[in-house]
Amino acid sequence: MHPAKKLPSSEFAARTGRLNGILRRHRLDALIIHSEVNRYYFTGFTSSSGVILAERGEEPLFFTDFRYLTAARKEVCSMPAKMLWRAAEQRQVIAALGCSWKRVGYEGSLSAARFLELQTTLPDVEWIDISGDVARLRAVKSIAEQRAMRAACAANDQLFAAVVEKLHADMSEWEISTLIRHQCSVFGQEPSFDPVVCVGRNAAECHHYPGLTRLRNNRALLLDIGVKLDRYCSDMTRTLFYGTAGNEFKMIHQIVLDANRKAVERIKPGVSCEHIDKTARDYIERAGYGKYFGHGLGHGLGLDVHEQPGFTPGDKTVLVPGMILTVEPGIYLPNRCGVRIEEVVLITSDGCELLSSAPTCQLNNILRAG
Amino acid sequence: MHPAKKLPSSEFAARTGRLNGILRRHRLDALIIHSEVNRYYFTGFTSSSGVILAERGEEPLFFTDFRYLTAARKEVCSMPAKMLWRAAEQRQVIAALGCSWKRVGYEGSLSAARFLELQTTLPDVEWIDISGDVARLRAVKSIAEQRAMRAACAANDQLFAAVVEKLHADMSEWEISTLIRHQCSVFGQEPSFDPVVCVGRNAAECHHYPGLTRLRNNRALLLDIGVKLDRYCSDMTRTLFYGTAGNEFKMIHQIVLDANRKAVERIKPGVSCEHIDKTARDYIERAGYGKYFGHGLGHGLGLDVHEQPGFTPGDKTVLVPGMILTVEPGIYLPNRCGVRIEEVVLITSDGCELLSSAPTCQLNNILRAG
Repeated sequence: MHPAKKLPSSEFAARTGRLNGILRRHRLDALIIHSEVNRYYFTGFTSSSGVILAERGEEPLFFTDFRYLTAARKEVCSMPAKMLWRAAEQRQVIAALGCSWKRVGYEGSLSAARFLELQTTLPDVEWIDISGDVARLRAVKSIAEQRAMRAACAANDQLFAAVVEKLHADMSEWEISTLIRHQCSVFGQEPSFDPVVCVGRNAAECHHYPGLTRLRNNRALLLDIGVKLDRYCSDMTRTLFYGTAGNEFKMIHQIVLDANRKAVERIKPGVSCEHIDKTARDYIERAGYGKYFGHGLGHGLGLDVHEQPGFTPGDKTVLVPGMILTVEPGIYLPNRCGVRIEEVVLITSDGCELLSSAPTCQLNNILRAG
Repeated sequence: MHPAKKLPSSEFAARTGRLNGILRRHRLDALIIHSEVNRYYFTGFTSSSGVILAERGEEPLFFTDFRYLTAARKEVCSMPAKMLWRAAEQRQVIAALGCSWKRVGYEGSLSAARFLELQTTLPDVEWIDISGDVARLRAVKSIAEQRAMRAACAANDQLFAAVVEKLHADMSEWEISTLIRHQCSVFGQEPSFDPVVCVGRNAAECHHYPGLTRLRNNRALLLDIGVKLDRYCSDMTRTLFYGTAGNEFKMIHQIVLDANRKAVERIKPGVSCEHIDKTARDYIERAGYGKYFGHGLGHGLGLDVHEQPGFTPGDKTVLVPGMILTVEPGIYLPNRCGVRIEEVVLITSDGCELLSSAPTCQLNNILRAG
């Protein structure tokens, strides 16, 4: 696979333009973006350190340190790149820059230590957490982003097929996870997250760390995998069975699949996230397994593997076209078995489009004999 | 390679015992550990969510959510594992737990949003940042950790040799970085960080993102790579040359190597970190390249790839046996070339032990013809 390709520079320029909306909405004199992923979102440039500073009425600036400056000057197209002050000088620089600021936006994900330092340096400033504003921008994907997400999910389908093709009896969870990580560099640049690989009853731990348990006849295999393609994350879960599944597994698999499908059917603009969560949750509860589904139904997906909004109880966000989320109900019976089925959906003008498309039902014949 | 092995459970018990020292030193009623790496440091358990709560005079508790509880109950040996409250209940739970707390320790790396929430929930509490205390515990490696770090660095030497063996002309930086990531799963579990691979003048950007530039005759190749073995990070940089190096490259390479060796010679207990940084920095400055060495000389290494203390100007930490740091001077001439040579040292009772050992001098003959 090639190195990650960037979206057209017009994308980053358009996003940077939206910082003005945030400045205006909260009547801010300035705002500061610290987090790595949001720095990338606005600049298209990756670095482990840096800061975007947008002052009202001024062009935003990207500051980074010595290690990244040469690259930043070449690659950041949406704003000028400047040399960052040294940590020791930070206080004076901020004090000088901000002497007339009264209201300043910051990200709530900023560390408490740095936030307290800002507060001490500019004691009269009122600090406004703008994380929610940036998260809401990121939640609605542009046409170019939708294309990137479609491609990432298609790559994940291919990854899944390639992995299943290469599975054989007696592989350990660890070996399977290594296989997945290697295949990620065939279909994209890297895994979106550490692959979750659970054999047999380990699937009852829904985020089990892959170990030495081996794939054997009459054992289930839960795979929760995602590949990043051109920076965008895919994410999909399937629960397969190697050999002949017993009735309990089959029944649970069917309930989880039905819960998934019923939730997906309800997804359309205007509906709240918590309503979609409730659809799947009520279904599983009526089937008698409510207490075995202890996590949210899904989460936003994009540059990060977990974004806003979430299909979770209490998330009142109303769906709009362009949002992309996972739908992943599960049932986990401690020390017995676990099933999760996860899809990715893009909200469209009148419903949703399923971006993931690997088969969910081939329980018995998907694996070769070892 | 096998899944990551854990240190003996006595290690985690001993570390957890040291939380009492922090409680006493700052006269705290309680302390809260949020960060993923520190939760692992004290519990030996990996999870994307959780909290350690230590109250004075009580056994510390590990809280995690539904997704990890089954695994945590099996694997956390140093303290009991409990079910985490739901996000929505967090406020009441914290308010009830902390009704008699006056001074509470927290990590400065905690997000500002969560910190402000804690402050609002427990308005009368004085909050003490204990990150430095935990960082100081982690900075001095136990005998078992030293063994783990020695093994990780040896694995990185083997990784480096295997990668160099497989290099050939016309490979792109991206292909080399993919090769490195694959080989990481042969010699350890995963990369410590995204491999830095710079061909030719790209090495002048000291943290260049690997692209499509290809290895060709008469080009330098900077490799900054590390593999995690059993959770511990290695980290090493070499700058090789493919073909016949010109005089400028040879001279810079020698200056950087000498700066490295001179710094390493000075390392012993009782010396300050900034003094070691100054040793290498002065040497490079006297050679006329001071302004082209813009980063710190090195950083602590362990569970994280960047830990405290640092060989940086202003770090007055005094070296003690058991600390492990990198030593990585560099010279970067924009649009011409860059050289960095990075070693890992363990502070011993009377000096230091070099944990990295890949050759640094085979500039011309280390690569096969393509």
